[in-house]
Amino acid sequence: MAKENKKYVVGVDLGGTKIYSAVIAQTGKIISSSRRKTKAESGFDSVVSRINKTIFLAIERAGITLDDILAVGIGSPGPLDLKEGTIINTPNLKWKNAPLKAELVKATGKPVAIDNDGNVGILGEYAYGAARNAKDVIGLFIGTGIGGGIIIGGRLLHGFNENAGELGHMILSPDGPKCGCGNKGCIEALASRLAIERDIRAAYTAGQKTKIFENTADSQERLRSKKLADAFFENDPVVKGVIERAAQYVGLTVASLLNIFNPQVVILGGGLVEAIGEPYVKIVRETAQGNVFPIAIRNVKIIAAELKDDSAVLGAAKLAWDMVEKS
Amino acid sequence: MAKENKKYVVGVDLGGTKIYSAVIAQTGKIISSSRRKTKAESGFDSVVSRINKTIFLAIERAGITLDDILAVGIGSPGPLDLKEGTIINTPNLKWKNAPLKAELVKATGKPVAIDNDGNVGILGEYAYGAARNAKDVIGLFIGTGIGGGIIIGGRLLHGFNENAGELGHMILSPDGPKCGCGNKGCIEALASRLAIERDIRAAYTAGQKTKIFENTADSQERLRSKKLADAFFENDPVVKGVIERAAQYVGLTVASLLNIFNPQVVILGGGLVEAIGEPYVKIVRETAQGNVFPIAIRNVKIIAAELKDDSAVLGAAKLAWDMVEKS
Repeated sequence: MAKENKKYVVGVDLGGTKIYSAVIAQTGKIISSSRRKTKAESGFDSVVSRINKTIFLAIERAGITLDDILAVGIGSPGPLDLKEGTIINTPNLKWKNAPLKAELVKATGKPVAIDNDGNVGILGEYAYGAARNAKDVIGLFIGTGIGGGIIIGGRLLHGFNENAGELGHMILSPDGPKCGCGNKGCIEALASRLAIERDIRAAYTAGQKTKIFENTADSQERLRSKKLADAFFENDPVVKGVIERAAQYVGLTVASLLNIFNPQVVILGGGLVEAIGEPYVKIVRETAQGNVFPIAIRNVKIIAAELKDDSAVLGAAKLAWDMVEKS
Repeated sequence: MAKENKKYVVGVDLGGTKIYSAVIAQTGKIISSSRRKTKAESGFDSVVSRINKTIFLAIERAGITLDDILAVGIGSPGPLDLKEGTIINTPNLKWKNAPLKAELVKATGKPVAIDNDGNVGILGEYAYGAARNAKDVIGLFIGTGIGGGIIIGGRLLHGFNENAGELGHMILSPDGPKCGCGNKGCIEALASRLAIERDIRAAYTAGQKTKIFENTADSQERLRSKKLADAFFENDPVVKGVIERAAQYVGLTVASLLNIFNPQVVILGGGLVEAIGEPYVKIVRETAQGNVFPIAIRNVKIIAAELKDDSAVLGAAKLAWDMVEKS
């Protein structure tokens, strides 16, 4: 095949913590990539500029030019207005009606497909990963926040206002901690990385023994998933206890999702699941098993995302490829 | 039209408390009906016999014969094995692997369509009632238990093992009261008529003032929805407080369902909603409004079932008509 026929898309994973962009072929092969911190607190314009830098660096690293790119797909924290291509508001990024799609069209001159982070995550696993042989799939992505995505009959469920799949805001504990979304006791407020960090700090402040703040110059530095996983595997009692309880909360949420959807596969992804892996998934699976109608879990797979950190960029790329195919 | 061309189906609503059968035309017109108490405690064979009596009495009352019936549809508490046509197990009826469909085929000689009570309830509202202009609909039916049903793109969601829609067993309070399903803190254990009755009795036993047990020969007699509604409207403090709290729990569950599905319409039905009506629906709507992403509730209707007590028989009839059309 002549070089001029090799066309690609760029997939972008905009997270609360980092931006990850990749040049991706239609097969799902990642040609090159680029990452930066999101620095959400620096404001929307600054983050857009950071996104664009990752896009252009990934293109440069692929040894191609913008002309070889057919489209851009991006997964963003929601809720989104898909028609307008705007981020309506989002607990972790604190923007209102941010015109994400328009800004990326302006910067790249390419058609831009946008969907929320949970949707692109599960779309990636459905198209190229752990759910590729299933038609009814639920995804839960546990990181800084908790995202979700729903595939029914092989299609993303978008809903009446295109806002379905906000599974992180299912309420599990009406008297629970306040969530970034403004409500109380959402699973995101109980089991996200930020919730886990909050609970570890509270236990530490209350005098419980944990080594997680040792070897840290600044005890206010945020606890990354990798650091949490290391302490989990070292059996740090506070960290292990908090993470286990968080995973049990996720398991109860999965039980509810099984009773609601009775899907074929439940995919668990996101930074925290990726860092801890099967020990985390096992707690979720066993908790779900103990709290669901047996028929709703019979032969249902509850498994880790296979694409790990690449779920969302690959799903974003799939969005872009689907848009290219339709046009 | 000659009399021999007038064909009907029988719809059956098998509830934890009563059996309701009706002869129904393809337009959704109810020609005749018959009701009996379920008397679940008398055992499966006895209940089947009671179901058959209602079917044959409804046919007799329609002035037709069994020859004029094309099929029978029945809504039953779940979970069900739809392929086998059996009730696998159900918190309120306490049967295991009960061959409901086979027994009705034997008794009537007709094809029998079966689905769970929540599914037929929402199917009835979708085909003939409050949701007839929507494509994405969630139903919650609050009676002895809490049933649910999900319509996406105009079709009932059945799921991998045909057990989707058990919305009554979404977990809202992990440390909450034990549910009939064996788990803790399901919305059914918090807000069903049985849960409300339990909480009223507990308050009464604890010495709180309520008149609901006055004028009752036996204070152990169960509190029907009508009696609860009367006390609610008389501002009985215990009854009103317990029902309001239960409706708030339902509202939180609706908030979760809106964030999950972002449907166009949420239908609230079942004996309790029917008995109290708009004051109940209003609490649910306002609680949901306060606990959901604004976009997930924008222009979404949260309304009472229109067919009231007929949702399930009409949905069961629709099941039967759909089966007749396909054959």
